[in-house]
Amino acid sequence: MGFRYEIRLSGSGGQGLILMGIILAEAIGIYDGKFVAQTQSYGPEARGGSSKAEVIMSDEEIDYPKAMKLDLLFAMNQKSCDEFYPDLKPDGVLIVDSTFVNQIPTPKAFQVPVTRIAREKFKREVVANIIALGALTQLTQIVSSKAVESAILARVPKGTEKLNRDALKAGMAAAKKAKKKWMKTEVPSEIPKEDLLDSY
Amino acid sequence: MGFRYEIRLSGSGGQGLILMGIILAEAIGIYDGKFVAQTQSYGPEARGGSSKAEVIMSDEEIDYPKAMKLDLLFAMNQKSCDEFYPDLKPDGVLIVDSTFVNQIPTPKAFQVPVTRIAREKFKREVVANIIALGALTQLTQIVSSKAVESAILARVPKGTEKLNRDALKAGMAAAKKAKKKWMKTEVPSEIPKEDLLDSY
Repeated sequence: MGFRYEIRLSGSGGQGLILMGIILAEAIGIYDGKFVAQTQSYGPEARGGSSKAEVIMSDEEIDYPKAMKLDLLFAMNQKSCDEFYPDLKPDGVLIVDSTFVNQIPTPKAFQVPVTRIAREKFKREVVANIIALGALTQLTQIVSSKAVESAILARVPKGTEKLNRDALKAGMAAAKKAKKKWMKTEVPSEIPKEDLLDSY
Repeated sequence: MGFRYEIRLSGSGGQGLILMGIILAEAIGIYDGKFVAQTQSYGPEARGGSSKAEVIMSDEEIDYPKAMKLDLLFAMNQKSCDEFYPDLKPDGVLIVDSTFVNQIPTPKAFQVPVTRIAREKFKREVVANIIALGALTQLTQIVSSKAVESAILARVPKGTEKLNRDALKAGMAAAKKAKKKWMKTEVPSEIPKEDLLDSY
């Protein structure tokens, strides 16, 4: 069986998660040249405003495009973090928007103040999803930053290219900081810190 | 096993098929309250510029979100019509953008000049996907026009609401015309015309 990597992006409706999923899928599939499937599902409960988008990447054609056990969960609010954390693999990566997620279920999580950066640095909450993409790109090795930048520029409205490029960079920089902080975090002594590091 | 209905929207990159899929999925899932999954897949061949988006609807939760045998194929160019027509069920519905699809594989197809309407009536090719949504809504019973209108208005840029509402209506009107023309079409005598009608 080939390599398969499952990502779920989750939060509230309006946080731009579907576009984030499409850009990530296009970066991986069109610009990095791997197989990728991108899905969103709605049910009768969808009026509640929860939103999730999934991206599955593989080195072979994808027969089953729905996530089963997550390699990466990006949670943009507390509700989605609580709901989907159980779907994460034991060695899976959790990234949270620390603007909205205060109760973190694991010391292994990366905390990036995505929406706070969008508000304070850009005065535009709408770029939160692009900042989040930058953080994801920096914290994982699954997609190249060049591919992500190309995919962003192909999808965002004309005239907003600089804003979005800056947002991507800000997300990558914030993720670097989050990783540094994470390296210094106290973790329960029953988990050797090397084991945590090995997961990444 | 419950009701399941599989739709594929296909054409060239740049025809707005992914947004069309998302709007259709949100109309069905959020506004009409059924279960729905919306997927796009890319492979290493994706640079070629072919685009497809799938929408699966069901009256129960969707375990397998990828289309197997299509109930509805919307082909916005000749290549995708040729490639995907074999995936259509024998009683499936084929709708083509007759601006680009000239070789129709079945007398059962509905021919709507989607892009020509976008160009001539609106001087904006970018609304072709909304005209196509109008045609799809008119020619099938799978989603209400009210749900589609709400989903469109929630997704299109501010300031373009009237343009998009008019495009939706133009698509519905063109589909009515296409259906009338289709009713008068000569079909090979070995297919009783009633059988064709029964499919819809």
